[in-house]
Amino acid sequence: MNQFRQTCARISQHSLFINVIITLIIINAILIGIETYTSVDSKYYQWLILGDRLLLWIFTIEILIRLFGSKSLKDFAKDPWNMFDFIIVAAGHILVGSHYVTVLRVVRVLRVLRAVSIIPSLRKMVNALIKTIPSMGTILLLLGIFFYIYAVIGTMLFSTIAPEYFGQLHDSLLTLFQVITLESWASGVMGPILAEDPTSWWYFVTFIVIGAFVIINLFVGVIVNNVEEASREETPSPTDIKLAEVQQELAEIKQLLKSKY
Amino acid sequence: MNQFRQTCARISQHSLFINVIITLIIINAILIGIETYTSVDSKYYQWLILGDRLLLWIFTIEILIRLFGSKSLKDFAKDPWNMFDFIIVAAGHILVGSHYVTVLRVVRVLRVLRAVSIIPSLRKMVNALIKTIPSMGTILLLLGIFFYIYAVIGTMLFSTIAPEYFGQLHDSLLTLFQVITLESWASGVMGPILAEDPTSWWYFVTFIVIGAFVIINLFVGVIVNNVEEASREETPSPTDIKLAEVQQELAEIKQLLKSKY
Amino acid sequence: MNQFRQTCARISQHSLFINVIITLIIINAILIGIETYTSVDSKYYQWLILGDRLLLWIFTIEILIRLFGSKSLKDFAKDPWNMFDFIIVAAGHILVGSHYVTVLRVVRVLRVLRAVSIIPSLRKMVNALIKTIPSMGTILLLLGIFFYIYAVIGTMLFSTIAPEYFGQLHDSLLTLFQVITLESWASGVMGPILAEDPTSWWYFVTFIVIGAFVIINLFVGVIVNNVEEASREETPSPTDIKLAEVQQELAEIKQLLKSKY
Amino acid sequence: MNQFRQTCARISQHSLFINVIITLIIINAILIGIETYTSVDSKYYQWLILGDRLLLWIFTIEILIRLFGSKSLKDFAKDPWNMFDFIIVAAGHILVGSHYVTVLRVVRVLRVLRAVSIIPSLRKMVNALIKTIPSMGTILLLLGIFFYIYAVIGTMLFSTIAPEYFGQLHDSLLTLFQVITLESWASGVMGPILAEDPTSWWYFVTFIVIGAFVIINLFVGVIVNNVEEASREETPSPTDIKLAEVQQELAEIKQLLKSKY
Repeated sequence: MNQFRQTCARISQHSLFINVIITLIIINAILIGIETYTSVDSKYYQWLILGDRLLLWIFTIEILIRLFGSKSLKDFAKDPWNMFDFIIVAAGHILVGSHYVTVLRVVRVLRVLRAVSIIPSLRKMVNALIKTIPSMGTILLLLGIFFYIYAVIGTMLFSTIAPEYFGQLHDSLLTLFQVITLESWASGVMGPILAEDPTSWWYFVTFIVIGAFVIINLFVGVIVNNVEEASREETPSPTDIKLAEVQQELAEIKQLLKSKY
Repeated sequence: MNQFRQTCARISQHSLFINVIITLIIINAILIGIETYTSVDSKYYQWLILGDRLLLWIFTIEILIRLFGSKSLKDFAKDPWNMFDFIIVAAGHILVGSHYVTVLRVVRVLRVLRAVSIIPSLRKMVNALIKTIPSMGTILLLLGIFFYIYAVIGTMLFSTIAPEYFGQLHDSLLTLFQVITLESWASGVMGPILAEDPTSWWYFVTFIVIGAFVIINLFVGVIVNNVEEASREETPSPTDIKLAEVQQELAEIKQLLKSKY
Repeated sequence: MNQFRQTCARISQHSLFINVIITLIIINAILIGIETYTSVDSKYYQWLILGDRLLLWIFTIEILIRLFGSKSLKDFAKDPWNMFDFIIVAAGHILVGSHYVTVLRVVRVLRVLRAVSIIPSLRKMVNALIKTIPSMGTILLLLGIFFYIYAVIGTMLFSTIAPEYFGQLHDSLLTLFQVITLESWASGVMGPILAEDPTSWWYFVTFIVIGAFVIINLFVGVIVNNVEEASREETPSPTDIKLAEVQQELAEIKQLLKSKY
Repeated sequence: MNQFRQTCARISQHSLFINVIITLIIINAILIGIETYTSVDSKYYQWLILGDRLLLWIFTIEILIRLFGSKSLKDFAKDPWNMFDFIIVAAGHILVGSHYVTVLRVVRVLRVLRAVSIIPSLRKMVNALIKTIPSMGTILLLLGIFFYIYAVIGTMLFSTIAPEYFGQLHDSLLTLFQVITLESWASGVMGPILAEDPTSWWYFVTFIVIGAFVIINLFVGVIVNNVEEASREETPSPTDIKLAEVQQELAEIKQLLKSKY
């Protein structure tokens, strides 16, 4: 049994095994892309379904090899990427006979995301991206409060003037998201409202100025965080190398002084 | 009396007290959100009003506890966040019977901002954001002069061609704000003007180029400021630690030399 | 004569003199703003003209005081800000009787820019902004070549399909400026062209990707430049202070060693 | 023969030779620009064709001089800029009689790009820009996967609702490119879809939030990379100079100690 585990472990870490899986994920991605072309899909429907089923089973075997190759079930489950792979593949099996066709199709598309979990550099990159999220926590919370207050005020003031933009609280939130991306905020959203209520410009101008200011700082937070991260990972600077030489030299001088008496 | 003050101070700094207030602010925020849905509002109007009145009185008691718990009235008023909380709650009481319904409603929405004054990390963040404003003072003034000159020229040149955009000085200022956010500046604003006056492109192009250039520098100012702030707060760098070791070593050598004679 | 020069110099550097001039520039700016409101302008036309003439003569006297107060005419002309002030004021006198009404009005608006030349912090800021331009020279040249090539290709390919956007070379250049600001590039510019020539998307996508990439680097160049500038102006870092102490210590040790023999 | 090679090498590196070529490239650029004005083109067609032919032959001679002036054919071909120049000029000769008129015209426009290969500072800048591409490799790959997944899901969900935006996979990819540039994403693309499927906002909002977040990090990557590059090229910092003095001092002290015994 132990030997079987070791064989599985060796296989799962072999570069050939990983390359084959990457290739299959790419084939899977291409198949999914082809399916969206309805003319092709209706013609080769049978073959596309077959290819998909085949790939699902190969990925199932791959997960099983990695599962058997890990020290314990707990050890396997500890890595969130393993759990991600497992859920994606398991969902493919569970949903296959069901009526949730759209969900099944989305799950099949998400299988392309397995490329992230299998290619080490991508995995590292995504881990790094996710790690920067908590450092922005407070400012995201602030941005949330800011959005909520403006959405409530916007609904109160403009729900009758512009019901398509500020009709209800969730409409206002979506509109404010559009405004913060600066998309048609003046020509589309503010224009008709300004015609009814000529003083409403303060609402949009303050929202954009404050919002942009907060977001710039959010952005700066990410930059500062990443630059610090990068500098921490750096090899010792020339200054530090020279300083180490100075320390070495001093130790020698001390030795000289001590040895003589 | 003194003991009462100390009890109040102890209560106002207790984590349970703070958590209860935070919870109540969240409930307040949800109630305000629900009110914007007119169908719900008309049905449960009585209850919503009651909830609002109740929360206002609880917040009043909270402010009073914090007021009694502080060393003196002056000490309480010194912290701008305390004054902010006080004004928000007091305004709720003052406006309650009046006819300024919209103002009262806005004040009630602003009560959500109290989350910033009560959650320490948010308070710290907003303080930090506000602190970066003066460092941008000069460039904001420059931006203001730049906007004003372009607004006057724009009104002079285009007030008859495009009265909806450049009709009067304040229209021009709003239009220029729209142009600097790059929203429909070419298709919406410049298009009809260019049809009448084919040489007017220089006005928009120079405004965008100079404006973007100044704003990028404003933006860089914020970044540089924040990065410096961050590095100032940092713990001593490894270089500095090593340097301290060198100084220690030198002192020992000096001692050795001196002791011998 | 020499005493007169010294009196002028003393006056021109007096803070009261500078503050009066700043106040007059602000009044001038307000007058120019009021003039744009045609209803006000027609009513108080006489007074506005009078105020403008008065301010022009006061500014003339100010320039003369500063001119007499400087060591020589050459010394006065060496500072570009002095020349700027001189030209703005002189142009006001020269154009006053002429028929170039629009030019005269623009010159009068530009008088507001004198605030930059008289307020030291603004002058310093603008000097700093102008200094960063040469450091972007090469990349601006690159951007120019890039724009020119795309404009020629665009005119060649789309001049018959979309004459309003790509009719002639200068139209194309303006359109590409609009595209690089991302304003209506897809819905406005590319949409109708794509309907005629379905492969034309590569033109816009490559232009935006390459353009954005080059501009990001331009932007980075400005940032790096400013950060370096800022760090150069900084006071010595704690590391350098410690290092100076180490050098002091070493000198003392050397002295000790030498003195003994 | 060897002497001929040396003469060619000397000519090709002479500043006069380079300046003449730069001037001719500028003339070439102006000619190409003039050609786009159809009224001018039809009138002076003969002269423009003649000028173009003449310039092509001069550039051919220039390439030959540089080719003969290099140590070997291999040495010449090793520099990608030489190959670029060679292909551009050779393509001009090959296509001249053919029917691919548009291709020939584009090739002639690309001749303006030779300015990059001949002006050293531009060449250096472009080399530097190209060098930063690999450092963004992983995140570009991630962006690609992210685009592909959203394009497939978008085609699946909206191909019948909005065939002009999400009709087929390549349409979706182009639409998503438009959405990530924030151009008319709400008013143009999401608007009509939201009218049919009110829950579709999550598709656009998550795409923009995740996309912007990844792109900001891409952008930060470029900045960090360039800042590090810049600091690496810098002359030794004052800290390092001081440290070198300390090392010198220590060596002297050591010598002093050793010499005495």
